[in-house]
Amino acid sequence: MPVYKAPVDDVQFLLNDVFHIERYDNLPGFADASPDVVSAIVNEAAKFSEQVLAPLNRSGDIEGCTRHPDGRVTTPKGFKEAFRQLSEGGWIGLGAPAEFGGQGLPHVVSTAVGEFMISANMAFSMYSGLTQGAVAAMVEHASEDLKKTYLPKMISGEWAGTMNLTEPHCGTDLGLLRTKAVPQADGSYKISGTKIFISGGEQDLTSNIIHLVLARIEGAPAGTKGISLFVVPKVMVKPDGSLGDGNGVSCGSIEHKMGIHGNSTCVMNYDGATGWLIGETNRGLNAMFVMMNEARLAVGLQGLAQSEVAYQNAALYAKERVQGRALTGAKAADKAADPLIVHPDVRRMLMEIRAFNEGARALMLWTALNGDVSHRSDDTKARQASDDMMGLLTPVIKGVLTDRGFANAVQAQQVFGGHGYIAEQGMEQFVRDARIAMIYEGANGVQALDLVGRKLGKDGGRAVMAFFAEVQGYIKEHVDDEKLNVYLKPLGKALADLQQGTMWFMQNAMAQPDNAGAGSTDYMHLFGLVALGYMWARIAQAVNVKLASGAAGDADRLKAKLVTGKFFAERMLPETAVHLVRIQNGASSMMELPAEAF
Amino acid sequence: MPVYKAPVDDVQFLLNDVFHIERYDNLPGFADASPDVVSAIVNEAAKFSEQVLAPLNRSGDIEGCTRHPDGRVTTPKGFKEAFRQLSEGGWIGLGAPAEFGGQGLPHVVSTAVGEFMISANMAFSMYSGLTQGAVAAMVEHASEDLKKTYLPKMISGEWAGTMNLTEPHCGTDLGLLRTKAVPQADGSYKISGTKIFISGGEQDLTSNIIHLVLARIEGAPAGTKGISLFVVPKVMVKPDGSLGDGNGVSCGSIEHKMGIHGNSTCVMNYDGATGWLIGETNRGLNAMFVMMNEARLAVGLQGLAQSEVAYQNAALYAKERVQGRALTGAKAADKAADPLIVHPDVRRMLMEIRAFNEGARALMLWTALNGDVSHRSDDTKARQASDDMMGLLTPVIKGVLTDRGFANAVQAQQVFGGHGYIAEQGMEQFVRDARIAMIYEGANGVQALDLVGRKLGKDGGRAVMAFFAEVQGYIKEHVDDEKLNVYLKPLGKALADLQQGTMWFMQNAMAQPDNAGAGSTDYMHLFGLVALGYMWARIAQAVNVKLASGAAGDADRLKAKLVTGKFFAERMLPETAVHLVRIQNGASSMMELPAEAF
Repeated sequence: MPVYKAPVDDVQFLLNDVFHIERYDNLPGFADASPDVVSAIVNEAAKFSEQVLAPLNRSGDIEGCTRHPDGRVTTPKGFKEAFRQLSEGGWIGLGAPAEFGGQGLPHVVSTAVGEFMISANMAFSMYSGLTQGAVAAMVEHASEDLKKTYLPKMISGEWAGTMNLTEPHCGTDLGLLRTKAVPQADGSYKISGTKIFISGGEQDLTSNIIHLVLARIEGAPAGTKGISLFVVPKVMVKPDGSLGDGNGVSCGSIEHKMGIHGNSTCVMNYDGATGWLIGETNRGLNAMFVMMNEARLAVGLQGLAQSEVAYQNAALYAKERVQGRALTGAKAADKAADPLIVHPDVRRMLMEIRAFNEGARALMLWTALNGDVSHRSDDTKARQASDDMMGLLTPVIKGVLTDRGFANAVQAQQVFGGHGYIAEQGMEQFVRDARIAMIYEGANGVQALDLVGRKLGKDGGRAVMAFFAEVQGYIKEHVDDEKLNVYLKPLGKALADLQQGTMWFMQNAMAQPDNAGAGSTDYMHLFGLVALGYMWARIAQAVNVKLASGAAGDADRLKAKLVTGKFFAERMLPETAVHLVRIQNGASSMMELPAEAF
Repeated sequence: MPVYKAPVDDVQFLLNDVFHIERYDNLPGFADASPDVVSAIVNEAAKFSEQVLAPLNRSGDIEGCTRHPDGRVTTPKGFKEAFRQLSEGGWIGLGAPAEFGGQGLPHVVSTAVGEFMISANMAFSMYSGLTQGAVAAMVEHASEDLKKTYLPKMISGEWAGTMNLTEPHCGTDLGLLRTKAVPQADGSYKISGTKIFISGGEQDLTSNIIHLVLARIEGAPAGTKGISLFVVPKVMVKPDGSLGDGNGVSCGSIEHKMGIHGNSTCVMNYDGATGWLIGETNRGLNAMFVMMNEARLAVGLQGLAQSEVAYQNAALYAKERVQGRALTGAKAADKAADPLIVHPDVRRMLMEIRAFNEGARALMLWTALNGDVSHRSDDTKARQASDDMMGLLTPVIKGVLTDRGFANAVQAQQVFGGHGYIAEQGMEQFVRDARIAMIYEGANGVQALDLVGRKLGKDGGRAVMAFFAEVQGYIKEHVDDEKLNVYLKPLGKALADLQQGTMWFMQNAMAQPDNAGAGSTDYMHLFGLVALGYMWARIAQAVNVKLASGAAGDADRLKAKLVTGKFFAERMLPETAVHLVRIQNGASSMMELPAEAF
């Protein structure tokens, strides 16, 4: 049975010592997030994740969800009770507005907590995660009436939320969608169509399910400019807020899939279901983007979270399992063999994973903090700058953290040898679960294209220039700090590669857009490496500051960070060079063959 | 339902035009392998793989194997009939000696055929694959008596063979093994102990199962020098060759695992089972190495085979599924959207997979051909040179082809978007099945260490120097061929990286062996890239020759190879640079942390 221990200390170090969240206490919600409060919250979340959610992870995978002939779906044993505890603990509304019953805490705090819950039980955490996304979209775009009707009960966990985009013939290309909305005299709409891959589309955890559904109002233009967003409750809500009759929406089937068995992936049939418009007519994608961006960051977090729990189990196994002798002579001469961790190649696997995890956690929290500033600051320039940064980093986080997160789960499984392939060990579940994160909420190739095709050029390249300036500025500022040399020099080289790659696109992709598409995935990973390298430099600097001020009990843990960051800088950052070569290679050999040759 | 079409044309092109197997017809068996005969064989194997084996792949995954309370194991529906056809077709003994009923054909031919069968149904093909490995070990090391008793029926498919190494506490480190062998007055031994992860340890396909078992004879030295190899039949064989009583061996349980569900992975309990020594006392590992090396190449072939079938399905999907528009303007203006294959990033995924597959197929066949020379030539020097090459390339093929094969299956799955995660599509099965190949027959980290720690330095580096000389010589020989420039220049650069990496080990790993371990996996992949790049150069040259001589019907397929090889040279070969950086980085940051820090 796999274990999980939430990285509570690391989160607090990042929040307090690296990102100094106390400096943001002029923002709404931050004043309530003093170090003591945050410490209490993350410790409580750790306990809940470790003790309630983690034990349901493997049993949920084995049992999966069941659809009954009447369309009801049963989630695995224990999920309902765990969801009740999750709701009562106020976890769903941690970052939601106080006026609807949320706690209004910074998003950076709920991100930290989110990682723990996903590590403990990814399939389970999706039910509440999507609810939080639906809440965010409605807070921003729904009418006051709709907000009042739905938000309090979604935030309390009495009801859940879902996201309905995909149809059998269209996923990425939403312009093709066919679900129809017919306006009714009372201002509502009748929604008809089929949606697929709807996570938590039907379940037995909540008394109502609030579906956010993209559909085309009769007569609307074709393509993406004719799509509107609707809220469609599973059960109609009476004016007094109590539940009325069922609505015309049902679960037609659930998918058999590679992983996340504990989450019901539903085909949803809308058959003249009553819905209400969210936001403006034909601007549904705009409203849905709030939820999508939120979801993309959450999916990036899934990559990190699965990588973290897989790492923890691999590290434990590597210290316990004895097999072979160290190349430098026996280390545990009293035993029949040395523990796996004496072998450099096993170390390599563990170091690669942890060097990613600790950098990625910093990147997640830094981006969430940017999100908080962009939503809560009253300084227009600060809002814009943070919004730019978050928009730029969203595809990077989604694409890179899930690609690497999956690869890391595979690598952690490898540490177990044959035992990693056996279901009882739980390692193969991490791999199967992590796999979906590279696909949903926009496959990673789509993220790469979003980065290169949209985010780079947006506002004349304002966001990417700001990112370059920030990293460059940081390097300059610390150029005389000899202790940081080992991190900053490789970072400077990597940044130069990224700038060259960017320049190459500017010179070669305008006239030939396939050159952008051909290099997009490499560019995304190149960007991710630089972003992670930047985080490592900031971590190392914070460690040095803390060590200098005498961080007694924590010294070993902090010093380990200096080594791990060095490993990242020396062995992982240099990958940028190959990405640059590939970018500069352009589209020619890639696009040369006719389609029939494949 | 996934499709599969065996790459019959590619195999024949490689055998005839790249490797010119007709030049080897002085070797036993090769005279029988004329182009016409080979063509008939591979076409027949293709038909059998496509029509009989492939349809059982997904059903076998769903149904899996069942162990009954009495210890019997049932394989999935259809496997028994398919195994009967496999046996009757003479496929198991294709490369086995004629004196025991085999066809004595070159190993290079059975390797080609093996790829088809594994692509069609990896779990199924393991039953016969392990039988072939057991046959090979017995041909080389068993007494004439044992050979006569067992080989004909294993080769005919009446009986199957297995390989019993792993025990609960030891996999890689066989020196720890505890299974005991007690000598009996009649020259037999009583074997007792528990073996785990025994593929096909129990099944219902054959009337007997011949287990090759590593065990320690009472009183033998500890460690690997006290291990002997035994043949232990499931059912005792009477002097007249008919089956007698059951032997003291039984299947205690079967594993629930990530993939290859159609193959029974058994815990085997030996309880005073009767066995006979194969080869010399305490030299069991030496005898088992024949089977292990055979198996390692076969597992490398699994990596390629899963990559190939995954590619075929991804390519088909990319041409059929319409989603989005080309960056350069609509390509299928009559349709609602363009096929996926117009998108550069989808192309990238497909090109990376096929560039690997075609190069890897060449490398597999070239190595098998070396195996044939090493076993069949009467020229001592040629035997030695080929044996060196095969020994050197075995860990490279096992490690690189399975790492990349798995990554390619994941990438092919990615082309399907959300649909790739759904079991019905079959793509996720390729991923789950391919995963084991990185682990068994020596986890890939162990392969890397075998390459760096054993194969490099063996005989004063004779094998690796010969490999360098061969590639260098090839580049020199063709340096004036302008058409080959695009392949040879990057190959020369990659070879230089490999030579530098080798030199670095010589200078830095003797005194500090952890430096070898730290760079071993990178070195293995660096080596693999050079080997594949060399294959691509030879393929391109053969294509040019064939096109110049007017290869009418085949021209499009051949020209596509020139583009695919260019893609490999331009975009994949440059990865060698990063591997070299990592090798030269040594063990320091990797080994610095104390074990408790993990």
